[in-house]
Amino acid sequence: MKINGTPFRSIWCEAGEVRIIDQRWLPHELRIVPLRTRAEFAAAIRDMWVRGAPLIGATAAWGMAVQMAEDPSDASLAETWQVLHETRPTAINLRWALNEMRRLLAPLPPSERAAAAARRAAEICDEDVEINRRIGAHGLTLIREIAERKRGRVNILTHCNAGWLATVDWGTATSPIYHALEAGIDVHVFVDETRPRNQGALLTAWEMNSHGVSHDLIVDNAGGHLMQHGEVDLVIVGTDRTTAQGDVCNKIGTYLKALAAKANGVPFYVALPSPTIDWTVRDGVAEIPIEERSSAEVTHVQGKAPDGSVISVQISPDGTGARNPAFDVTPASLVTGLITERGICAAEAGAMEALFPEAARSAA
Amino acid sequence: MKINGTPFRSIWCEAGEVRIIDQRWLPHELRIVPLRTRAEFAAAIRDMWVRGAPLIGATAAWGMAVQMAEDPSDASLAETWQVLHETRPTAINLRWALNEMRRLLAPLPPSERAAAAARRAAEICDEDVEINRRIGAHGLTLIREIAERKRGRVNILTHCNAGWLATVDWGTATSPIYHALEAGIDVHVFVDETRPRNQGALLTAWEMNSHGVSHDLIVDNAGGHLMQHGEVDLVIVGTDRTTAQGDVCNKIGTYLKALAAKANGVPFYVALPSPTIDWTVRDGVAEIPIEERSSAEVTHVQGKAPDGSVISVQISPDGTGARNPAFDVTPASLVTGLITERGICAAEAGAMEALFPEAARSAA
Repeated sequence: MKINGTPFRSIWCEAGEVRIIDQRWLPHELRIVPLRTRAEFAAAIRDMWVRGAPLIGATAAWGMAVQMAEDPSDASLAETWQVLHETRPTAINLRWALNEMRRLLAPLPPSERAAAAARRAAEICDEDVEINRRIGAHGLTLIREIAERKRGRVNILTHCNAGWLATVDWGTATSPIYHALEAGIDVHVFVDETRPRNQGALLTAWEMNSHGVSHDLIVDNAGGHLMQHGEVDLVIVGTDRTTAQGDVCNKIGTYLKALAAKANGVPFYVALPSPTIDWTVRDGVAEIPIEERSSAEVTHVQGKAPDGSVISVQISPDGTGARNPAFDVTPASLVTGLITERGICAAEAGAMEALFPEAARSAA
Repeated sequence: MKINGTPFRSIWCEAGEVRIIDQRWLPHELRIVPLRTRAEFAAAIRDMWVRGAPLIGATAAWGMAVQMAEDPSDASLAETWQVLHETRPTAINLRWALNEMRRLLAPLPPSERAAAAARRAAEICDEDVEINRRIGAHGLTLIREIAERKRGRVNILTHCNAGWLATVDWGTATSPIYHALEAGIDVHVFVDETRPRNQGALLTAWEMNSHGVSHDLIVDNAGGHLMQHGEVDLVIVGTDRTTAQGDVCNKIGTYLKALAAKANGVPFYVALPSPTIDWTVRDGVAEIPIEERSSAEVTHVQGKAPDGSVISVQISPDGTGARNPAFDVTPASLVTGLITERGICAAEAGAMEALFPEAARSAA
């Protein structure tokens, strides 16, 4: 999407090199960096210069391509799969992208690998953009309906960053919003700051600000009150993993917003590319293990100091520990619908299987 | 309560002067400061060296007493009422304490005012402590029941700071917790950090840490997940204002925790001294205006920098605005009960009137 009028993707080729936005410095500084070696790609993924499942996958694919130009041997292919996979071993999309590249490259003679890898990496990026574009087009119908019924500004609440920075472009939860803006609909976004890592305040707010979407940052505590007073027309969030019965695993706090939406009759939608559906899991609350991350994420907050430097400050007493579950599961009963690249369906096994029969079947 | 083994109140007399904890520096620094002049008392209230309705009232009462020792004239009495009232003109408890002092002092000859004022200020403090002690004794029965049924650690979640730092001692929501600890019950407290002002992380965590209560800091997003997984046995929060039908106005985000408690069968209690009940209001959601505070509270976070200084860092992009509703209203239907100084009652007009017939009648 746009940064102050100029269209960007989160990863792209320019002047013969792959470039990314080093997201660790957003929103305080826009640092565009080239990734030139496998080691740089590995660092970019491991140290979260890039994040978001689709963008991690795309970055890994490009990492493989850059390494194939350097050394297209079988040993290099195997080692690169290993090196890049180890950067975030639990990231499903990373593994998928690396497997996809290996599947394509392994049968080719080494001399053809560099070109084929670059072509496929570019395709993987374009495929992600296309999936997200479709999610946006389907989600747009929801926003348009509300705009027509309401005859006024449509207020949308989102949590965390399921924006273009987490994908190659458009984002998932944000794609309907960008599409609505392009369609001339008056939209306003309430951006949950999304403690502990503040992806909303740091990234989603930056996206909205840079692209020119009307928005307000709110603390995670505020959404319930706003919904209670009719100030939210629609909630759209992303998901890290959605089960075959429509339970939605997403950033911690999503569940509380879903409860508030249900209690106040606010539609609660989840935008997702279909590979995010885990057809092997049904009961998300019972079956999905929730990662507990470092307590320092809770006890410390990063931001821009008065002198302009970006530092981390401690908000809690020395000696106070913290619990830090990173995700929660929103039961399907609280989800109005899933916005996928094929259309919108209920968060319910039958509806999901009807939309993705081949995926559901192959997992069965 | 205790600070590393030594019992403290939040305001006290020592060596002939009134002392407070300057709470602006907690938890990073324990600064005890004397308040010696009316101007210092006014600054302490206005600039939030002290906060919390009961403590503000107690501080104002002592401010009046200190001024009466300086100048007990009618003019001084009237002016002091004015000066102290202007520090936080919407604080009900401040107004109550000042009116109470004026009612007592105005009929007395000036020569008797200083002694009478000091006596009454000390009494106001003791009365607050006694009310909170009773709240704790009643709340203790709930915790004891859970401990006996569960035969294990009782996990209690609280939001914001309704602790001893907000009162003269014991606190409201924390009083049952301190009582349980004294009764030898194994309790553990999940402390919501309570964005935007982080009173949980800054103050409640400090209280727990200083008194030696087992606790974990959590982000406001985490409580729903913990309740979903049976990790919370009881929620106790305070309130700024509770209506005659039991709707509870409290720090923003309380409502989301109440929704999660209801959805997961976790008892949700509100601890309050009965003067917090506003018998003139019934429907809290419709009738209570919610203050919107400065957006800087959302866009910035205060904490301790690596060099030990306490500074404020900006977490959002330049140009991003914020909405900052300071409170929300939890409908009575989500509240399991009210813990008052007279006992526990349902959050329901009939039960509340039965417990406080004289107050309900005088408002009717």
